[in-house]
Amino acid sequence: MPSSPVDTSPAAAPPVDPFAEHTARLTRELMTALVAEDDTEALARRVADVGQRLSRAAAAPHAVAVDDPHTTPNHITDDITPASSARNPIAPPMRIVPDADGYRCDLTLPLHYQGPPGRVHGGIVALLIDHLLGHAANWQAETRSFTRSLTLSYDAGTPIGEPLTVRGRIARVEGRKRFMEAEIVCDDVVRVRAEGLWLAPRAS
Amino acid sequence: MPSSPVDTSPAAAPPVDPFAEHTARLTRELMTALVAEDDTEALARRVADVGQRLSRAAAAPHAVAVDDPHTTPNHITDDITPASSARNPIAPPMRIVPDADGYRCDLTLPLHYQGPPGRVHGGIVALLIDHLLGHAANWQAETRSFTRSLTLSYDAGTPIGEPLTVRGRIARVEGRKRFMEAEIVCDDVVRVRAEGLWLAPRAS
Repeated sequence: MPSSPVDTSPAAAPPVDPFAEHTARLTRELMTALVAEDDTEALARRVADVGQRLSRAAAAPHAVAVDDPHTTPNHITDDITPASSARNPIAPPMRIVPDADGYRCDLTLPLHYQGPPGRVHGGIVALLIDHLLGHAANWQAETRSFTRSLTLSYDAGTPIGEPLTVRGRIARVEGRKRFMEAEIVCDDVVRVRAEGLWLAPRAS
Repeated sequence: MPSSPVDTSPAAAPPVDPFAEHTARLTRELMTALVAEDDTEALARRVADVGQRLSRAAAAPHAVAVDDPHTTPNHITDDITPASSARNPIAPPMRIVPDADGYRCDLTLPLHYQGPPGRVHGGIVALLIDHLLGHAANWQAETRSFTRSLTLSYDAGTPIGEPLTVRGRIARVEGRKRFMEAEIVCDDVVRVRAEGLWLAPRAS
């Protein structure tokens, strides 16, 4: 049976190379400018600014420091995932921490995650939930399990630019099966509910 | 009832500003370097190169041209989504085209979409499917419908760096409900199957 979150005292993950983390942050700025800025000249000024800062950091990569580096423990060693990696600009990145009976991640998503106007893309919602449940199923587990199935109910829109909480937990364990459940809450209203089955490989 | 894909002759979407599309392409290069390159000095060289190219394009944004611009028709006007937008670096971007009984998208995903080693992140799989089904449910429909629920079955791993086909269609329509189904195929093997319910707003 996987460890319960209450009895773990996870060590912080080793920090990502500060130059890589800094570059990923600049890249996220670039992404936001690209989707937010319709005027070519205005976009070009923002791109020029980021281009210069990228070049300046690259000229002395070992001198780069990052305020508040992303050191959240993760079930994936050398994390480069598009959900929680500090060095992958696709990732917000998610900071997953123990919660009452499972795990949670508080975050606010910028415009480059939008689907319908003002709402987080349904596929990005799935990415957040799948990743949080993968962490909840696998953190300090002896064998790593993988998503077998995932069902998402979109009860209400998940807003862009507002604080969200993604929560998830192991509902029960049956042999190799870990039955998972999760939800996304915004402004005290559940927006998305999910149920999933995570499966560990057969013992060899 | 939404139009059948066979009787449509969609006009190409208006091209994105070539400078924005070019910048998004450079940003994707940066993302791949960030997750692929462990050596700080080697990463810095690649970042310096992209930084210079960003700055050079930004100095004369109206002079930028893009080979093979992304003009795939889309059900979303002014697309900035993280799935199909040419100007959003998160998006591969997906090129969705009519298929026999629905729609398809052929693509190969680079390392920055990886979850488990060698496999596409389960949440990115969900993003591809949700977006393709949103297109299949909404292309030329009179009212736009939204994901109400989505169930994904991960039958096998979806490889990074190999050609994938995402396919999806309307299985049936009941009033405001569009029942959708999709799959991801790689090397003639179905890796992921999905069923979803898309719902149009009540007539006002």
